Amino acid sequence: MSDERVTFELSKEYLELVEQAIAREDASFIRETMDGVNPADISQLLDEVDGERAKYVLDVLNNEIGAEVIEELEEDTRRDFLEEFEPHEIAEYLVEMESDDAVDIINDLPVKTREQVIASINDPETAAHVQELMRYDEDCAGGLMAKEMIVANINWNVKETIEEIRRQVENVERIYSVYVVDDNYKLKGRVSIKKIILSGDRVKIQSIYDEDIIHVETYMDEEEVADIMQKYDLDAVPVLNLQGKLVGRITIDDIIDVITDQAEEDRQLMSGISSDVEEDDTIWAISKARLPWLIIGMVGSTLGALTMGAFEQELDKYVTLVFFIPMLMATGGNVGIQSSTLIIQSLANRSNFEESLTKRLIKMLFTAVLTGLVLAVIAFIIVVVWKGADQMQFGFVVGTAIIGVTLLASIMGTITPLILDKLDVNPAIASGPFITTTNDILGIVVYLAIANLLLP
Amino acid sequence: MSDERVTFELSKEYLELVEQAIAREDASFIRETMDGVNPADISQLLDEVDGERAKYVLDVLNNEIGAEVIEELEEDTRRDFLEEFEPHEIAEYLVEMESDDAVDIINDLPVKTREQVIASINDPETAAHVQELMRYDEDCAGGLMAKEMIVANINWNVKETIEEIRRQVENVERIYSVYVVDDNYKLKGRVSIKKIILSGDRVKIQSIYDEDIIHVETYMDEEEVADIMQKYDLDAVPVLNLQGKLVGRITIDDIIDVITDQAEEDRQLMSGISSDVEEDDTIWAISKARLPWLIIGMVGSTLGALTMGAFEQELDKYVTLVFFIPMLMATGGNVGIQSSTLIIQSLANRSNFEESLTKRLIKMLFTAVLTGLVLAVIAFIIVVVWKGADQMQFGFVVGTAIIGVTLLASIMGTITPLILDKLDVNPAIASGPFITTTNDILGIVVYLAIANLLLP
Repeated sequence: MSDERVTFELSKEYLELVEQAIAREDASFIRETMDGVNPADISQLLDEVDGERAKYVLDVLNNEIGAEVIEELEEDTRRDFLEEFEPHEIAEYLVEMESDDAVDIINDLPVKTREQVIASINDPETAAHVQELMRYDEDCAGGLMAKEMIVANINWNVKETIEEIRRQVENVERIYSVYVVDDNYKLKGRVSIKKIILSGDRVKIQSIYDEDIIHVETYMDEEEVADIMQKYDLDAVPVLNLQGKLVGRITIDDIIDVITDQAEEDRQLMSGISSDVEEDDTIWAISKARLPWLIIGMVGSTLGALTMGAFEQELDKYVTLVFFIPMLMATGGNVGIQSSTLIIQSLANRSNFEESLTKRLIKMLFTAVLTGLVLAVIAFIIVVVWKGADQMQFGFVVGTAIIGVTLLASIMGTITPLILDKLDVNPAIASGPFITTTNDILGIVVYLAIANLLLP
Repeated sequence: MSDERVTFELSKEYLELVEQAIAREDASFIRETMDGVNPADISQLLDEVDGERAKYVLDVLNNEIGAEVIEELEEDTRRDFLEEFEPHEIAEYLVEMESDDAVDIINDLPVKTREQVIASINDPETAAHVQELMRYDEDCAGGLMAKEMIVANINWNVKETIEEIRRQVENVERIYSVYVVDDNYKLKGRVSIKKIILSGDRVKIQSIYDEDIIHVETYMDEEEVADIMQKYDLDAVPVLNLQGKLVGRITIDDIIDVITDQAEEDRQLMSGISSDVEEDDTIWAISKARLPWLIIGMVGSTLGALTMGAFEQELDKYVTLVFFIPMLMATGGNVGIQSSTLIIQSLANRSNFEESLTKRLIKMLFTAVLTGLVLAVIAFIIVVVWKGADQMQFGFVVGTAIIGVTLLASIMGTITPLILDKLDVNPAIASGPFITTTNDILGIVVYLAIANLLLP
């Protein structure tokens, strides 16, 4: 060992030193170099080692730090890690977490382990919280909320409230607001932590609390909760059950996860990657996630091929027809994606003052006609410049087809996300390869049908 | 007027009542029905009326509420509204805002108005803050930060700190943490607001502050700040200048805006919509945002047409060749988008332990070969089933072309985002119509070249 003092650093060199330390079972190296390091950084380091080695590191750290490290791990890595732990060991970490994080981790365990872990939680409060939260669907407000929060009875004074904060200090990492309830635990309002600091001990909560408080209900969809918290710029929002009782709170960090996960899911759907893969997954995992949409795309374009087969005679007669198939396909595909994206965007920002569906569809059609006309003129010019003025008729066919395709692809691209949304399917899928391929094919069909109609 | 008491509601009916009240200059109707209503809701209502009417409503409300309403308005609407106001009126609202929000609004004004508004700010502190913040680029940490925060000298005790909170109570909406500095305003650490509440008045800040504090620097890119705040689950982060002095703080609400704006920009780039349009913009605005990429797509596919023109003889001889052009195009396009998305995703989640570029490219190639082989077999089967076993040779051509296209599109799709990223262009554009069209064309070229080579 060198004389130089080694400090924690997110680098391959330090990672190697840690691996060597694990190999020689040098707990003190790990303890010393990781002392005071932010758990999120330790997680990032452990994401690079296997489960057994990670367990060695976690065993060296104290449970509180260990729990935070586990929370911050990537989901895949965490799943692998936790296989190395006994149920009672996992339970010990869960006790250190906020209830919502504990439940997320339990839900990610194999069903059998799940039961054993819950049975091993030896802190009655944590066990009760976990059992209550497990009842809720993961992607509704109930599934996002934590039980940890500061609640004051409306009849308390500031001093009593500060006492309650003292009691909960270990459990509630961030306070944001104190929620005010009546004797039946019905939510009455909130007091900001700033007001608590600035008010004297004897001041009654009754006289300083703010009645105008925004809340959500347990059954609300997580995206609805995210919208509300974003709209009103909330750091935390109280959650009420159907009886109007305060049952938990959702904090902004969970909402950021909802927003980023949603954006990533949209991106993956738009690009036709079917499950949650990353560049550093195995070749096989990546291929498996990519193949389904590629195969669907191929089958779709076989339909295009069959369509062309039906027009074999025309194609044989006018081989020039063939040259513009890519243009019609590209236009259909691109127009379709654009239309879908615009609709998806406005589905995401629903307003109470929306124009009626009919008005919106009429507007979409006008836009399609305008866009189609511009594109048709360009297509006409391209044909005439390339093929000569004697092919004007041919330019007319291509131009007309472009208008037709723009119209149809706009309609498809607009209606598909609306239908998917009604069916509770993420409409982002409509900008993905499936619809794009459909619009490609649409391009071919419209084009050949119009050519068939217009050419001698 | 009816006897029924009208209350604020985000509905077309209430909107009409407000418009009528404006017409008959009934200020008390507006004041009464909007009393106690969340400013974000008033903004959403005002998004639906024109600037002149909105000004009437804002004039009725007090400046503090008005400022919040203006902050929450959609950018387009706000720009229209503020044209109705005199510079000194705008300045009065700005004084009520946190400095970062005030600067955002100033930056959005026409250059001439901007100067007049700044000159009209009659609160010296606000004026100084605004002038300081205007120096920073909008999308770096300096441009995101606000000057409002609670700062305690390391030599103070809790009582003095609470006094400072009392002084700043009007300015700092949410405290989160108290930042601890030395006499030179160098950041030493933080004290959580929880600790302030639970510590006695005489306790020295020196003895309760936490040294491990994560900070950002003024010049850091906003996305880097967002990554740090997300990674470490921060509600707020202090900003230091190059000399290590504390100059401001960034709060989580601003970061959420960064994240959602980024996601929206990505989606628009991926779908080839060139500027920030929404479904409720005019037909002309929407068409203008859509046409550039559509035209590029058309020009791109003209290149495809020219390529096919070069192979006119082959196409004439084997018209069946034509039928599989859509399949090759679709596969090229889809593979390209998928590859780009995977790379963009890993660019967004950069790690300190990344595999070397060579290793990643080799892996990408293996994935492409594997995917290509599977698709080639399927293509072969499709051809043989459709065209009969005597067309095996033809199936072989299509299959080989599929492998070639998958390889090339994977390479293109992987390398393009990497180059764009190096050039500081948002790589999401690589999943957009431009690259997709390029990959479509690639499909045609590879296919016809292989056919030319393999067919007699």
